[in-house]
Amino acid sequence: MRRENTRIFEKETTGSFMNKEFIAINALLTVEQAILYLRENVRDKRNIYYVYIINEHDRLIGALSIRELLSKDSNRLVSEVKVSKIIFFKTDIDQEEAVKVFRDTDLVSIPVVNENGKLIGVVHVEDILDVMQQEATEDFHRMAPVSQKLDGGLIESTIGALYRKRIVWLIILVFINVFSGAGIAHFQDVIEANIALVFFLPLLVDSGGNAGSQSSTLVIRAMATGDIHLKDWFRMFTKEVVLSMAMGFTMALAVSAVGLMRGGVTIAIVVSITMVCIVVVGSLVGMSLPFIFRRLKLDPATASAPLITSICDITGVLIYFGIANKLLNL
Amino acid sequence: MRRENTRIFEKETTGSFMNKEFIAINALLTVEQAILYLRENVRDKRNIYYVYIINEHDRLIGALSIRELLSKDSNRLVSEVKVSKIIFFKTDIDQEEAVKVFRDTDLVSIPVVNENGKLIGVVHVEDILDVMQQEATEDFHRMAPVSQKLDGGLIESTIGALYRKRIVWLIILVFINVFSGAGIAHFQDVIEANIALVFFLPLLVDSGGNAGSQSSTLVIRAMATGDIHLKDWFRMFTKEVVLSMAMGFTMALAVSAVGLMRGGVTIAIVVSITMVCIVVVGSLVGMSLPFIFRRLKLDPATASAPLITSICDITGVLIYFGIANKLLNL
Repeated sequence: MRRENTRIFEKETTGSFMNKEFIAINALLTVEQAILYLRENVRDKRNIYYVYIINEHDRLIGALSIRELLSKDSNRLVSEVKVSKIIFFKTDIDQEEAVKVFRDTDLVSIPVVNENGKLIGVVHVEDILDVMQQEATEDFHRMAPVSQKLDGGLIESTIGALYRKRIVWLIILVFINVFSGAGIAHFQDVIEANIALVFFLPLLVDSGGNAGSQSSTLVIRAMATGDIHLKDWFRMFTKEVVLSMAMGFTMALAVSAVGLMRGGVTIAIVVSITMVCIVVVGSLVGMSLPFIFRRLKLDPATASAPLITSICDITGVLIYFGIANKLLNL
Repeated sequence: MRRENTRIFEKETTGSFMNKEFIAINALLTVEQAILYLRENVRDKRNIYYVYIINEHDRLIGALSIRELLSKDSNRLVSEVKVSKIIFFKTDIDQEEAVKVFRDTDLVSIPVVNENGKLIGVVHVEDILDVMQQEATEDFHRMAPVSQKLDGGLIESTIGALYRKRIVWLIILVFINVFSGAGIAHFQDVIEANIALVFFLPLLVDSGGNAGSQSSTLVIRAMATGDIHLKDWFRMFTKEVVLSMAMGFTMALAVSAVGLMRGGVTIAIVVSITMVCIVVVGSLVGMSLPFIFRRLKLDPATASAPLITSICDITGVLIYFGIANKLLNL
């Protein structure tokens, strides 16, 4: 056993967070003998809810919950009463995968075997609670955008650590946003001639970003929980087309009054048409990008709100002034 | 028991998601008798890892894990060997609170008692996994902004349900953004005289929103995991002042070159000063708002990215054109 203890396992795999407190019972014992063995060996071990049944080579061949062991007839052999079809992990299973297994079953411990099928540890549901907490924090922070994960809590972190954690994405987004500026510069003439267009710039551009970040957030989370898969793209896309048009028309209606008041009929028309287009494009980009990232074998959560928002900003600027340019230069 | 079964408990409290499968053992049995009772009664019950010890009025007075029960001397009374200081829930404990208790202990089941101290159910860690999953999804969706929670998965939801889920926040944000437009209208003269200012509008305003949503996300999550509390506000605030100034100067440096290229020296100065101010104000608003919401006994997560972004948009517009107005009209 000592030899296995010193092996290095990949970070965030079952091998790295399994623990070594378990009860292994020889399959040739009777139920009575097994209970006796359990009573003698269980005293200083924590979190023992199952006994694992091993053969003479220490290979895992079955399991019984203590409840099941206790309910069996005393004189039968463990090998006869054991549950043989059991769930187990190899040592290299990713922690996210392990969380899914725990969620889908009602086991509180799952055994871990090495490449020879020998029982070398167990993953306990308490470890899974910690993993879920940590993964949820990572996903949540990704929305921020906060680049790498913080070692230790927010309150103890130094300013330097927080700076490094936050500045990278901020600078990346600055440079992405330079493209929005370039888009605006391209349409300088129509803006100068119709300065009222500028009033509606944050409103329109943000609406696209908001609609897009909604779609991407819903899709990213649904992918994380296994609710949707790559093959669902087309179905989601057609649904999103109808949905985003409905949302776009509602929002266009809401801004048309403001447009009318502040810019007159033509501006109101430009703003309303732009709103529908921006919401549809933003929603479809937000919905599709997580699929594209997953297809490219990247983490879909990379398509998080700030990236979507910046992409929607650029397309929003182009759509807005493109439409304005067409309609106002008639 | 049947009477309790039919009681209605508040949604998302321990009473509503506890289950009724548990083993209660009379304190006056011996360990031997208790094991026998357990073996007779455990057969068709799932997830039994502890026995709960009750007195003659069915009141919960202790517990033993099955492991502990098995390791005790056969002839002693359960009342002598039981663990008396145990963790239990009342029926009205919020599910978020219950998650914290499970995370902080390594119990896999926690008993639930009614107002008279009578044992009426147990919460099992498997239920907690489901609750954590659901809470993480709710928190994640709140970043979107997505208003109420979706019943059923994304893939089965109707377009109507998704529309209702998404449109409310979009419309609210449209009307908040009308204020940005009003801010811009107020500074119409300086904008008309310096049209290059418009190029930098999305860049500057988004940077404030990004910095603000970073701070709020970090604080909201740290509050949810119990890492920071109301009393930490001042400490966090002073730290955020220094941190946001460092980030602001870095970002100002990054945009000054673009400012110089596209607008000349004066515009570059205006843009750089604005960047520092916007990032500092955005960060402090983002950091403080969750504290304010919590102080007002509202959910801190209400101060999520989209709200912060919209607030930062309005203040960003005012800061930008305010500074431009001062410096360009000298």
